[in-house]
Amino acid sequence: MSVSPTYLINGSFSHTISPLDRGFSYGDGVFRTMLMRGGLPVDWPLHYQKLVADCAAIGIVCPSAELLMSDFQQNFSAEDIAENRLAVAKIIITRGEGERGYKPPAVTSPTRVLIKSAMPEYPSTYAKDGVRLHLCETRLSMQAKLAGIKHLNRLENVLARMEWSNEAIFDGLMLDTQENVIECTMSNIFARYKNLLVTPDLSQCGVAGVTRQRILGLANVLNLQTEVKPVSFADLLKADEVLICNSLIGTFQVVSVNNHTWQAQALATNFRSLLRQ
Amino acid sequence: MSVSPTYLINGSFSHTISPLDRGFSYGDGVFRTMLMRGGLPVDWPLHYQKLVADCAAIGIVCPSAELLMSDFQQNFSAEDIAENRLAVAKIIITRGEGERGYKPPAVTSPTRVLIKSAMPEYPSTYAKDGVRLHLCETRLSMQAKLAGIKHLNRLENVLARMEWSNEAIFDGLMLDTQENVIECTMSNIFARYKNLLVTPDLSQCGVAGVTRQRILGLANVLNLQTEVKPVSFADLLKADEVLICNSLIGTFQVVSVNNHTWQAQALATNFRSLLRQ
Repeated sequence: MSVSPTYLINGSFSHTISPLDRGFSYGDGVFRTMLMRGGLPVDWPLHYQKLVADCAAIGIVCPSAELLMSDFQQNFSAEDIAENRLAVAKIIITRGEGERGYKPPAVTSPTRVLIKSAMPEYPSTYAKDGVRLHLCETRLSMQAKLAGIKHLNRLENVLARMEWSNEAIFDGLMLDTQENVIECTMSNIFARYKNLLVTPDLSQCGVAGVTRQRILGLANVLNLQTEVKPVSFADLLKADEVLICNSLIGTFQVVSVNNHTWQAQALATNFRSLLRQ
Repeated sequence: MSVSPTYLINGSFSHTISPLDRGFSYGDGVFRTMLMRGGLPVDWPLHYQKLVADCAAIGIVCPSAELLMSDFQQNFSAEDIAENRLAVAKIIITRGEGERGYKPPAVTSPTRVLIKSAMPEYPSTYAKDGVRLHLCETRLSMQAKLAGIKHLNRLENVLARMEWSNEAIFDGLMLDTQENVIECTMSNIFARYKNLLVTPDLSQCGVAGVTRQRILGLANVLNLQTEVKPVSFADLLKADEVLICNSLIGTFQVVSVNNHTWQAQALATNFRSLLRQ
């Protein structure tokens, strides 16, 4: 049974979100989704660094790491810690409240939200045998000023996720409006060609996730060279192996996109164990 | 002095927005900004029709017109009516609350918000002499599935609005990533060439506003033919007259974009009086 999410707003369980919050009005903010183990966020320095960079990209001053750590301490219990429980933490940082109109107030006070929710229970076959993808019809629009940032303007992901209801499909592959492979709705993607590991260039759209960054850094342990470059859908289909990754799943091997299949191999398993070290 | 905004959430002054609301999480919703005169929304049938269409475009069932009208009645007072006061109403409709993840819940209950705020006080020179525009560096990304819709993913408008602080600039002209003129951050745009009135095609991006729709319908009264088509920045500069429009300003004549100037003429004034009839 899933536990109801609990949340802290600006460090308090009793605060609420105003409809004048610019996160609500305009999606004027950023977020992070993290794995929590024993009350602590996994890969926190990378997540915090990314949160600061994403805030800066849209002109928001990110709350301090200390403030966010004190939120974790408040929202995760002694039992979480003692039992080394897995959970999910989502941090949302918005520009704060403002009057009507796109112009941000001269002085803003960012809103910070920490939401704790249950760790999703994935079928064990996902890690063992891999997952299936749907090729989304919804394309990612190209906007260099917002590319790579995990901002709150996520309608494209929502529309893409609404395209399939088959429970056997884990995620949806998204292309940009020029038909390049970018990512999945909730994960980044890698393709292996012999000893070369390729992940799409995200300079025009997509979210540059922390696990993607870690995999790029770990590839040499598996004697893989890495390259970040544009990847066409035809390029992807030619790969020897494909994996997807995010902070909750680590990595899963991709066995199919629509009718195209790959024989599941060991790439995702190898990276999953490296990511856990 | 500006009056503090008041708001109703799902018909109640005491309700709050949950941080689990998908409007806050993903910008998963739409909105409208309307002029209120004497407690009644101006052009309500057109606004409601647009609200229903925008909701439908992203799979949200719009609350009934009756429910929204009862919100107006609650949030606007007998004095507003008696004194025929001008004010601004903003309606926000989101997909409602949901658990973490882009997939909408199987059953959703939309969140509706009505925010009442003071009518902005524009200098009288804006209507008399026209307004100046800044040419924004921020481009509008192209996404046919969201084009024309007034959805809550408005970071591009926010970034564009942050580009200037000069109070003498009224709005910012936005081009798309292929350098076509689309709109301003908070208004639509029209260009007159002899007896032809042109407004940009919004099939790839932009917001198709109600006042734009009304002007297209009223042009023949001024013996103008209309055309909706792609407009390059060079095309715009060649226009005899340019105007911008939205539900609050009606229309203002444009006198300049950056260093390019037009001699203010009567187009905006003529349309403004037609719009009021």
